[in-house]
Amino acid sequence: MSDNIVTSEKLNERLIANPFNAWLGLRILKLDEETIEIGLTWREEMISNPEARRTHGGILGALIDVTADFMIAAKVGVPAPTVDMRVDYHRAAMPGDLRAVGRIIRMGRTFGVAGAEVFDGDDKLIASGRGLYYTAPPPKR
Amino acid sequence: MSDNIVTSEKLNERLIANPFNAWLGLRILKLDEETIEIGLTWREEMISNPEARRTHGGILGALIDVTADFMIAAKVGVPAPTVDMRVDYHRAAMPGDLRAVGRIIRMGRTFGVAGAEVFDGDDKLIASGRGLYYTAPPPKR
Amino acid sequence: MSDNIVTSEKLNERLIANPFNAWLGLRILKLDEETIEIGLTWREEMISNPEARRTHGGILGALIDVTADFMIAAKVGVPAPTVDMRVDYHRAAMPGDLRAVGRIIRMGRTFGVAGAEVFDGDDKLIASGRGLYYTAPPPKR
Amino acid sequence: MSDNIVTSEKLNERLIANPFNAWLGLRILKLDEETIEIGLTWREEMISNPEARRTHGGILGALIDVTADFMIAAKVGVPAPTVDMRVDYHRAAMPGDLRAVGRIIRMGRTFGVAGAEVFDGDDKLIASGRGLYYTAPPPKR
Repeated sequence: MSDNIVTSEKLNERLIANPFNAWLGLRILKLDEETIEIGLTWREEMISNPEARRTHGGILGALIDVTADFMIAAKVGVPAPTVDMRVDYHRAAMPGDLRAVGRIIRMGRTFGVAGAEVFDGDDKLIASGRGLYYTAPPPKR
Repeated sequence: MSDNIVTSEKLNERLIANPFNAWLGLRILKLDEETIEIGLTWREEMISNPEARRTHGGILGALIDVTADFMIAAKVGVPAPTVDMRVDYHRAAMPGDLRAVGRIIRMGRTFGVAGAEVFDGDDKLIASGRGLYYTAPPPKR
Repeated sequence: MSDNIVTSEKLNERLIANPFNAWLGLRILKLDEETIEIGLTWREEMISNPEARRTHGGILGALIDVTADFMIAAKVGVPAPTVDMRVDYHRAAMPGDLRAVGRIIRMGRTFGVAGAEVFDGDDKLIASGRGLYYTAPPPKR
Repeated sequence: MSDNIVTSEKLNERLIANPFNAWLGLRILKLDEETIEIGLTWREEMISNPEARRTHGGILGALIDVTADFMIAAKVGVPAPTVDMRVDYHRAAMPGDLRAVGRIIRMGRTFGVAGAEVFDGDDKLIASGRGLYYTAPPPKR
């Protein structure tokens, strides 16, 4: 795997310049050559069913996408467009902050595949998934 | 395919009782036996990259998940837990309201599979995907 | 959607020149501008569990991949490399020939997304899925 | 994670009793509490494009499905029905035997999610993916 080419601080600036990421309360907790950890600050509007008070699956999916993408970004300098993704929901996420850990599965010339796992405050695995990111510049025509 | 067992009005009440769905400005635009249409009201916080001003992929993923799930809900009465999902991103979504159309792919005793397509204000296909929903009551132990 | 640029006959020649496709007994049953139908000839070696005698999920996945890809091929001239795919298994496939119907979901400059549904001899939906195909020539370096 | 409840030998008998698995030349190379390794014996009929002589994506998908499922089987005693799966293709697989390593991502009461990675003879990552397996007995009605 190639080295990171951007610092955690710079990557965090890029992360929170994104309005939806800022709304999600995202911040980079840790970055090394193999993994990235991103925290999410829970808020009332993230609730799905108002009785069960579970965190909405769309929030978990967004967190997985961003976390996987920012591990790619550490290697290529900027986040890459998401082409597609899969999310698996493992447990209900009750109100509370979340933490996601991202890793690269395969970094190619044209595509990168990266995955992420979401944990709750008790370090229980809540959801996981992987996305395909387009890392090549678009072909000139 | 079985008949819908809940009206569009009741389903819409259930939809917007969900805080994150309310934040997304979701509402049912149309419901028949085969399809559901759900509208999303764009807001500034949905932006991804602040320069490109594209709508965040996590928003599109959430819209696909909810739309597919509420077509399932029309058949079984309530939304079913999402087990997993796939999202394909086809075009950048520029600022503006979105519309998603959901359809059931396969309704079984234990699982339902449903898909949805997201269109922008020019009726261009922005994203699409499918999810697996768990429609059976959990086995008694 | 662009027009098909290759005939069904030429596409069928390309299909069965592929040894694994030939082993699967694949052949194009129908091709128009919107859909392709590919038939599979069942054989004993396709069985999964020897008691239940269901057709192996890997066979269904291969049929979905090839069918989606050959609808892409009708538009671009040759099959495109599969980047990733999702398969949903809906019903057990009992011994007997299968038929898959493929459609393009989104044809872009760099990627195409296409899906396919597999039916048994009673026209019951057995499995379905979608794949991402890389339709652009690799960028020159 | 719960302990394995079946030996590698018993699991291998179950694996190759399956005609398609036998055709693929599958065999369990290694099994511990965390991982399973399954080998595949290459054969000429596995080729996709006859000129490029790459191994067909359907073969890689089948290998991933079986490997993930047999790690589940080690925990529950028998292979579980695949509900859906995702496969990512990372590199072209040239003629030669393959090896897949499977791991459980999340083992629940009703579902298990497991993934697998496929390596070629040079230990290069060729493909990877994950599947959802239905581990609960069907609800009695």
